[in-house]
Amino acid sequence: MLRIITQWTEAKTELRRICDRTHDDQVVHKEATVREVLQAVKRLGDRAVLDYTLEFDHQKIKPEELRVSGSELDAAYQQVSKELLMAIQQARQQIEAFHRQRVPKSWVHFGEDEIVLGKRYTPVDRAGLYIPGGLACYPSTVLMNAVPAKVAQVPRIVMVTPPGKDKVINAAVLVAAQEAGVDEIYRVGGAQAIAALAYGTETIPKVDVITGPGNIYVTLAKKLVYGTVGIDSLAGPSEVLIIADETANPVYIAADLLAQAEHDSMAAAILLTTDSTLARKVVDEVERQLMDHPRRTLTEKAIAHYGLVAIVDSLESAAELSNDFAPEHLELEVDDPWALLQNIRHAGAIFLGSSTPEAVGDYLAGPNHTLPTSGSARYASPLGVETFLKHSSLVQYSPIALQKAANAIDILAKAEGLPSHANSVLFRVRDQLNPET
Amino acid sequence: MLRIITQWTEAKTELRRICDRTHDDQVVHKEATVREVLQAVKRLGDRAVLDYTLEFDHQKIKPEELRVSGSELDAAYQQVSKELLMAIQQARQQIEAFHRQRVPKSWVHFGEDEIVLGKRYTPVDRAGLYIPGGLACYPSTVLMNAVPAKVAQVPRIVMVTPPGKDKVINAAVLVAAQEAGVDEIYRVGGAQAIAALAYGTETIPKVDVITGPGNIYVTLAKKLVYGTVGIDSLAGPSEVLIIADETANPVYIAADLLAQAEHDSMAAAILLTTDSTLARKVVDEVERQLMDHPRRTLTEKAIAHYGLVAIVDSLESAAELSNDFAPEHLELEVDDPWALLQNIRHAGAIFLGSSTPEAVGDYLAGPNHTLPTSGSARYASPLGVETFLKHSSLVQYSPIALQKAANAIDILAKAEGLPSHANSVLFRVRDQLNPET
Repeated sequence: MLRIITQWTEAKTELRRICDRTHDDQVVHKEATVREVLQAVKRLGDRAVLDYTLEFDHQKIKPEELRVSGSELDAAYQQVSKELLMAIQQARQQIEAFHRQRVPKSWVHFGEDEIVLGKRYTPVDRAGLYIPGGLACYPSTVLMNAVPAKVAQVPRIVMVTPPGKDKVINAAVLVAAQEAGVDEIYRVGGAQAIAALAYGTETIPKVDVITGPGNIYVTLAKKLVYGTVGIDSLAGPSEVLIIADETANPVYIAADLLAQAEHDSMAAAILLTTDSTLARKVVDEVERQLMDHPRRTLTEKAIAHYGLVAIVDSLESAAELSNDFAPEHLELEVDDPWALLQNIRHAGAIFLGSSTPEAVGDYLAGPNHTLPTSGSARYASPLGVETFLKHSSLVQYSPIALQKAANAIDILAKAEGLPSHANSVLFRVRDQLNPET
Repeated sequence: MLRIITQWTEAKTELRRICDRTHDDQVVHKEATVREVLQAVKRLGDRAVLDYTLEFDHQKIKPEELRVSGSELDAAYQQVSKELLMAIQQARQQIEAFHRQRVPKSWVHFGEDEIVLGKRYTPVDRAGLYIPGGLACYPSTVLMNAVPAKVAQVPRIVMVTPPGKDKVINAAVLVAAQEAGVDEIYRVGGAQAIAALAYGTETIPKVDVITGPGNIYVTLAKKLVYGTVGIDSLAGPSEVLIIADETANPVYIAADLLAQAEHDSMAAAILLTTDSTLARKVVDEVERQLMDHPRRTLTEKAIAHYGLVAIVDSLESAAELSNDFAPEHLELEVDDPWALLQNIRHAGAIFLGSSTPEAVGDYLAGPNHTLPTSGSARYASPLGVETFLKHSSLVQYSPIALQKAANAIDILAKAEGLPSHANSVLFRVRDQLNPET
């Protein structure tokens, strides 16, 4: 089921195909639908939001039901087990501890001639978090989005998530949102939720930045509203790439590959190894672990289409293939992972050594699990506090500093054909040199 | 010509109109053209690039002429004055000095139970800089884009800029590119240039991140290729908002407003002042300075459509209006600019005090002049070294750390319906506790 490739060029080709798996031709058609949803919500507000919720999510919601009520929020705590609440609290605490490290701070620098230069960091006024719903329930995703916004001191954190059967939102999701400090929650998903956050409606506030993963409609909507608001990234299906040598345990590797594949039939699970014996054992072990897997059909589909084992001649070759792929998750299941790390240039999160399955990072270690997918780790970073901060440059010149700079500015402004740029400096300097005029 | 508004609500409405000035209805039509260009360049490479250059820029270029040659680069130094070269060098040095401050650094944190967490920053492999051409020549923009990429240690910096008459690229632009460390320059502009950088052609390399301002076609192309590559931002026309009290000099304010307006007939120039006498003097002075302005028609158009003076009752009110507008450039021409700064939440760059015209920052002070426009300072930051860096999270757990985390991960994974996530941890812990099995 899980294929083994031994040819370098074939491995490269297959990895390219898997990396590009989201670029399907139906996107243009779906984009037309999403554009229509965006326009309708922009024009009609709540009414359009509710109509699309009925059409797409089959839930008939009244305007006053859009916002999740205080009693519903309270009730959620009664519906989760004590163990789950404690696990959510532990995860929140560890995610916060990691995100509090090295948060960018405002600074000014005092230079010669009383020049002051600096950067001033401030949070966005409002953040909007999209949390997927449907079959799954992701309290961990709530924490991973809300905690960095809270650490950034965003004054108003708004969450949207699609209503399930009987308009219900999963209790664990509601508890996680409260533990993380989300200020308000709306029962809406899909492109209509993104539209509501981007433009605002009577009930749902317009925000400044929208984060969080979603299906293809949500992702297309985020791309289209980018520029009206900020977004974190365009998330594609999840992926793991594991580099393993002969010291790796095939049972662990198989579980790690399946932990990726069980997310989504489009998820990718790739092993690059120098050890052909390990490769065969992993293939067998994947079959074995799949046998009684509760999500067997979906997981098998992912493994069949986007699963791959490639045998490579060295760990350096594996790193080269991995850099081309730029995986969202990279596991280095090798004897000396820190040595191999030096060869890695692009990856969302890197898990080092045999006691660090990706699941540690998905839930508890602290670093964010919202990571660049589909090769975007070539240029993008994990979600973080920075996603909810922006900065302004600060510049203050003194009269003497301006005099010294005037000549160079005059020359550059005139070279660019912008005389008022030059004048804005020259008028000031002239007055300084002849204060009586 | 420059209107004065005294009503708060009218001021709010007008500022909203000016902020939204780029959202024109022709965008959808232009987007169709841009999509066609992108598809053609993706499919046909150089051939499409050259066809569109003939069609849009009216320059017939051969494939081997696309890349600016070494002899052309050498010759550029003969064509710029010694003064201009020195001004470019001074600007480059000061931009570099500012951008070298507080560059994000990789770090690891050693926690309890031998847990290692960290962030590892690496530059993108290739950066593509778009430099506008046409009527203008912007060596300063070359510096502002290339220097941060160089400070980020991007191994390959590629620049594109449209060819002028007789296929020529402005000599000052070529000199600035060489001084800043650009590795290669291609004679191509418009959406076809963005397409070439995003997809690669026979001659022009595919890059990882595209930065730099351009016209509406360039901006639409950047939005459409976002996700295939990273981009800095979607730049709109430039804007300045000046907050002034009775201590401000109307001659300087007028020059600063015109320095913005002279860029573009879509540029916005706004004054918010507590002093109605100053307001009238500024209006008169703008008229006077416009009289012999070499770009009078264009500048007058900007002032007429997107120029505004609003009289406000307090500096706090001015700050509130400014925060709603979130200006690209903000000048605080008041007695105590650092006190007023505390009320400012959103702005691209802030210029403090009467000796700091925006032109200082445009050319020489050091902070970047590529700044968030059209209200995007609510969530976005100036171009910087960070634009060319990304980071990976690092996680290493020890066997004992994994044992301690296992229970919480198990609970969370099962709550989310992801059994292989749980197994990936439990299999390891089981073996650790029973090493003989």
